[in-house]
Amino acid sequence: MAANYLNLPKSITWEHGTLTLLDQTQLPEKTIFEEQHSIEQVWDSIKQLKVRGAPAIGVAGAYGLVLSLKHKTHLDQGNFLQIVEKNAAYLDSARPTAVNLKWALTRLVDLAISLPSMSSAEICARLEQEAIQIHEEDRTLCRGIGDNGLPLIKPNMGILTHCNAGSLATSELGTATAPMYLAHGQGIPFKVYADETRPLLQGSRLTSWELQQAGIDVTVLCDNMAAHIMSQGLIDLVIVGTDRVAANGDVANKIGTLGVAILAKHFNIPFYVACPYSTIDFATTDGASIVIEERGEAEVTHFGLRRTAPENIQYRNPAFDVTPHQLVTGIITERGIVEAPFNNNLQKLYAA
Amino acid sequence: MAANYLNLPKSITWEHGTLTLLDQTQLPEKTIFEEQHSIEQVWDSIKQLKVRGAPAIGVAGAYGLVLSLKHKTHLDQGNFLQIVEKNAAYLDSARPTAVNLKWALTRLVDLAISLPSMSSAEICARLEQEAIQIHEEDRTLCRGIGDNGLPLIKPNMGILTHCNAGSLATSELGTATAPMYLAHGQGIPFKVYADETRPLLQGSRLTSWELQQAGIDVTVLCDNMAAHIMSQGLIDLVIVGTDRVAANGDVANKIGTLGVAILAKHFNIPFYVACPYSTIDFATTDGASIVIEERGEAEVTHFGLRRTAPENIQYRNPAFDVTPHQLVTGIITERGIVEAPFNNNLQKLYAA
Repeated sequence: MAANYLNLPKSITWEHGTLTLLDQTQLPEKTIFEEQHSIEQVWDSIKQLKVRGAPAIGVAGAYGLVLSLKHKTHLDQGNFLQIVEKNAAYLDSARPTAVNLKWALTRLVDLAISLPSMSSAEICARLEQEAIQIHEEDRTLCRGIGDNGLPLIKPNMGILTHCNAGSLATSELGTATAPMYLAHGQGIPFKVYADETRPLLQGSRLTSWELQQAGIDVTVLCDNMAAHIMSQGLIDLVIVGTDRVAANGDVANKIGTLGVAILAKHFNIPFYVACPYSTIDFATTDGASIVIEERGEAEVTHFGLRRTAPENIQYRNPAFDVTPHQLVTGIITERGIVEAPFNNNLQKLYAA
Repeated sequence: MAANYLNLPKSITWEHGTLTLLDQTQLPEKTIFEEQHSIEQVWDSIKQLKVRGAPAIGVAGAYGLVLSLKHKTHLDQGNFLQIVEKNAAYLDSARPTAVNLKWALTRLVDLAISLPSMSSAEICARLEQEAIQIHEEDRTLCRGIGDNGLPLIKPNMGILTHCNAGSLATSELGTATAPMYLAHGQGIPFKVYADETRPLLQGSRLTSWELQQAGIDVTVLCDNMAAHIMSQGLIDLVIVGTDRVAANGDVANKIGTLGVAILAKHFNIPFYVACPYSTIDFATTDGASIVIEERGEAEVTHFGLRRTAPENIQYRNPAFDVTPHQLVTGIITERGIVEAPFNNNLQKLYAA
């Protein structure tokens, strides 16, 4: 295990058939681990964002499906497989736009269907192994990203990150945070600056929390302070995560990432994006074809229950933005760091 | 009156010896006008930021001093002048770093001392005229800025602003907002995008409110959304205010301004700063010598009473940043628009 000695949050654990989730909606005020006792509870945990981050949702969904099958193994195989499909569809409905959730559930359903010679109990055991495998694969991807990004972190660097592409969103090391955790594990001193990341504050609520837990020197700041902090020479490196990378290297990520990339270019600071292969979407030619989700009003016009903007005000709330590949120094993947020309180099890396 | 037909917030009114302040701490939820009945109440209104913005504080302080003298005119001149000085010092202590407050109060005190042949009642009447004059001068400066900035606004433009350099912070037209109010008065259609301006949200609480009141098409957005909005081609012009302009044209303004200026440069959008002559500080050679105030923790780590960052987290909270003059397209003043080379052109404009 690469990171045994780090105090990483156990956002998802599966032990002796018990699924436990860290309730991320309560962070940073309360650290509450919640055992999941039913498929309805898992559905609700995904829906309520108690577990969040594309890879983490996939892992939680897979375990949730297995959990729901444990007491159905008395059924004959035909009825059991019907339950597998029905429960998978139900769990998927908790966050229908989360690609990883559907992907993980489909993987289990397809596996179950491919095992016609097994009993229901044997299929259930095999699906449990597969869910553990999905979890382990995500851990391995994060470690690969960490290994490849580690050489970027030099002693006494200041590193800026945006949103949460951390352990909480994935398994173990996270993506953008993976090089940081490994560098910290090697005793390299560095400082992280975490943008609070309006409107939902994943940076101040989650990233600063998980880095602080691991003993990393982390400072939280409002998004609009990044330019000033950079102008003071405090940032040497930017690492962010991403929701989707287009074939040409354009990067869709949490709103505000584009601004950080432009500031980094202005101040000649390297700007890196960390992600596993599954985030690179060769079917998307470039960022222009990525549809940006616009979210509702209250996140922008209220702080909690208090209204902070006038009644009937017009607002914008794009959830993501697209950073053109020209602003990206490199993409840190589990296979290595990809640099420009991204079109060729991404193809080359994944052609094998 | 340039703007009779605009529905501008009356943040400070003085009618028949009665001072009324719009309580800006209640905006945008409640629009409460509060008559000021004592010097203690005015002191508290300044302290609590019920009235805010450098020019507005100066005007409110001047009226507050006159208010406190109305019932002291039975005193002989010597005792009356002592009260003038004592009350001015008391009011100044409400916000000792507000240069305009001290400036306005000193102007009244110096005037009172210069009138030895008058009775206390006559001096009081003269100070009331002077306070009204200070208010009117600020109105005139804002109108001058508006007149000079007006030609920048073309039909159907998108204009981004940051923080509140509006009517609420000054008298009548504001500074950054003055060209917008005049353009709107002329029936020119345009859209304003108001950065919410973390951490204190002057953009969403105040700027969007006052523009909405005046019937201007205004949209509020989180600071980190500006880059995306610019990348969509929605912004043609940026106008912001400033707290201090150095002799070389470097601009100190609310935190986040530097980031907006860098984004504007990246997207080839003109970036203008609006201010009266009194904001240009020839004694400050350049921005590097401007000390940036760092404010306390809660503004960054809490939303209202709710903690949004972990306990004991490190934080940064610079209140201002400095935008180097190379990023400034022009400075809109009551005497005209100053462009590069700023050092020469600012000197030239004010040499006369």
